[in-house]
Amino acid sequence: MNSFNSAAVREYLVELQDLIVTRLEQVDGKKFLRDKWERPDGDGLSCIIEEGNVLERGGVAFSHVKGGKMPVSATAHRPELAGRRWEAMGVSLVLHPRNPYAPTTHANVRMFVATKDGAAPVFWFGGGMDLTPYYGFTEDAVHFHQTCKNSLIPFGDDLHAKYKKWCDEYFFLPHRNEPRGVGGIFFDDLSEPDFDTAFAIQQSVGDHFLSAYVPILEKRKDTPWGERERDFQLYRRGRYVEFNLVIDRGTIFGLQTNGRTESILLSMPPLVKWRYNWHPEKGTPEAELYEKFLAPKDWV
Amino acid sequence: MNSFNSAAVREYLVELQDLIVTRLEQVDGKKFLRDKWERPDGDGLSCIIEEGNVLERGGVAFSHVKGGKMPVSATAHRPELAGRRWEAMGVSLVLHPRNPYAPTTHANVRMFVATKDGAAPVFWFGGGMDLTPYYGFTEDAVHFHQTCKNSLIPFGDDLHAKYKKWCDEYFFLPHRNEPRGVGGIFFDDLSEPDFDTAFAIQQSVGDHFLSAYVPILEKRKDTPWGERERDFQLYRRGRYVEFNLVIDRGTIFGLQTNGRTESILLSMPPLVKWRYNWHPEKGTPEAELYEKFLAPKDWV
Repeated sequence: MNSFNSAAVREYLVELQDLIVTRLEQVDGKKFLRDKWERPDGDGLSCIIEEGNVLERGGVAFSHVKGGKMPVSATAHRPELAGRRWEAMGVSLVLHPRNPYAPTTHANVRMFVATKDGAAPVFWFGGGMDLTPYYGFTEDAVHFHQTCKNSLIPFGDDLHAKYKKWCDEYFFLPHRNEPRGVGGIFFDDLSEPDFDTAFAIQQSVGDHFLSAYVPILEKRKDTPWGERERDFQLYRRGRYVEFNLVIDRGTIFGLQTNGRTESILLSMPPLVKWRYNWHPEKGTPEAELYEKFLAPKDWV
Repeated sequence: MNSFNSAAVREYLVELQDLIVTRLEQVDGKKFLRDKWERPDGDGLSCIIEEGNVLERGGVAFSHVKGGKMPVSATAHRPELAGRRWEAMGVSLVLHPRNPYAPTTHANVRMFVATKDGAAPVFWFGGGMDLTPYYGFTEDAVHFHQTCKNSLIPFGDDLHAKYKKWCDEYFFLPHRNEPRGVGGIFFDDLSEPDFDTAFAIQQSVGDHFLSAYVPILEKRKDTPWGERERDFQLYRRGRYVEFNLVIDRGTIFGLQTNGRTESILLSMPPLVKWRYNWHPEKGTPEAELYEKFLAPKDWV
């Protein structure tokens, strides 16, 4: 920790959110709702689009919350931090495009700090981004992963492979034996080698989100589609709900600890279908998603 | 335990499932799919209706599974059972009618047994039923609760009040500060005063399900509805998903322990909507649901 600076992280996150929302508004043509909130334990700005031209539902949320005592779930691996005050800030986004050929995406950059009087603050960064297509395109997966890799190249040769694998492991539905999508990068507990470097990695990941996702969205948003593609999209969105409500630690932690429910559940798709024991027919584009894209592989 | 008889419970459950499915088929006019399954650790019969005339999606599932070692989550309150073999059997159902004026319902009867060589088996029953309307009708809530009460009257004066309260407490979404619906009855850990009585209570609850729910379904299934009611129904179904995936112990336990996913997720609605921070306008029938029906009260 050479120059720990919580205010600088907050400033970065607020600007990143604004940058992302502004760019998405250009693509969509519809403005996001900006919903500022304050509670005794924190504040935030939830930016939401619903029934947009391109985005059927999406949220880009900044939040900054504090607590008097580290939650047990956060200190399981760090017993030395039990009882400390804590602070968490981050930008989290999920975008559900209307067009079934355009993938859903999720990105997140966050910092956690544990403080105690008379002791240096303990901080760690986390985050990443990942892509969840309904119909797979190799070039989209390659572009997304290449951009993720580019964001990490300045920080060492092994970082991308490590964070790519972490993403594959994290975004996995054991009860379906399926990855959530084609992956991306995921990291947590990042405080090495020092604050400046860790913060720089977080910034680079955040800064690369738009160039990872927007070209894909722009390329796919006007592809003609029909009832079949829509149906498959709504069915697959069910997996997204299952992952976020059953598996995702952030969502579960937020809901169980009196987080702001409406902001946490910005990740929910606008419209979702479930049906019993459905499997795509062999040789269809829907089967190709399972066979070719929902299987961890090296895209770059 | 005067006459513990696992086979008798299984026989009852299998017959109950058949009775319920047959009656629902009469109401709907469409046949259920009967999907028999076997795995090394158990067997079951999942009966499913999708795109029925009355039921948009519904499942009535029988399952009977065994394990070599009591799961930790099941022995937290019963450390003396740790390490025992176990067996669980039950019928579980969720019905999502198409008509927004017809309520969703859930019912479940189950028995858990922990066995050890040379020791008497330890058994307990659990179950209940509850009602989740989209548009509330006092007479429906009263009828449902009265039938629940009737099922328990033969077994003592205080049982209904206890199980009614248990239901209100269990089917609650803390992150929404909302009950799931108008409640019903819920019980668990039932082994007193003896096997015969506990089994008789379970049978009475199971036997009363059709008379609790079908009259309501028949009364509401043809009520005219429009886009507004449909929209509200799909939005409220989101709460059902949130409860089952975030809160419901049975669902989470099943998904985390390699249960049969497609049978467990029969509870998911066919079509669901999420939208940001939505609240009904004052004085509307939608607001009445929240004010009058999503608040625990004594209906009978």
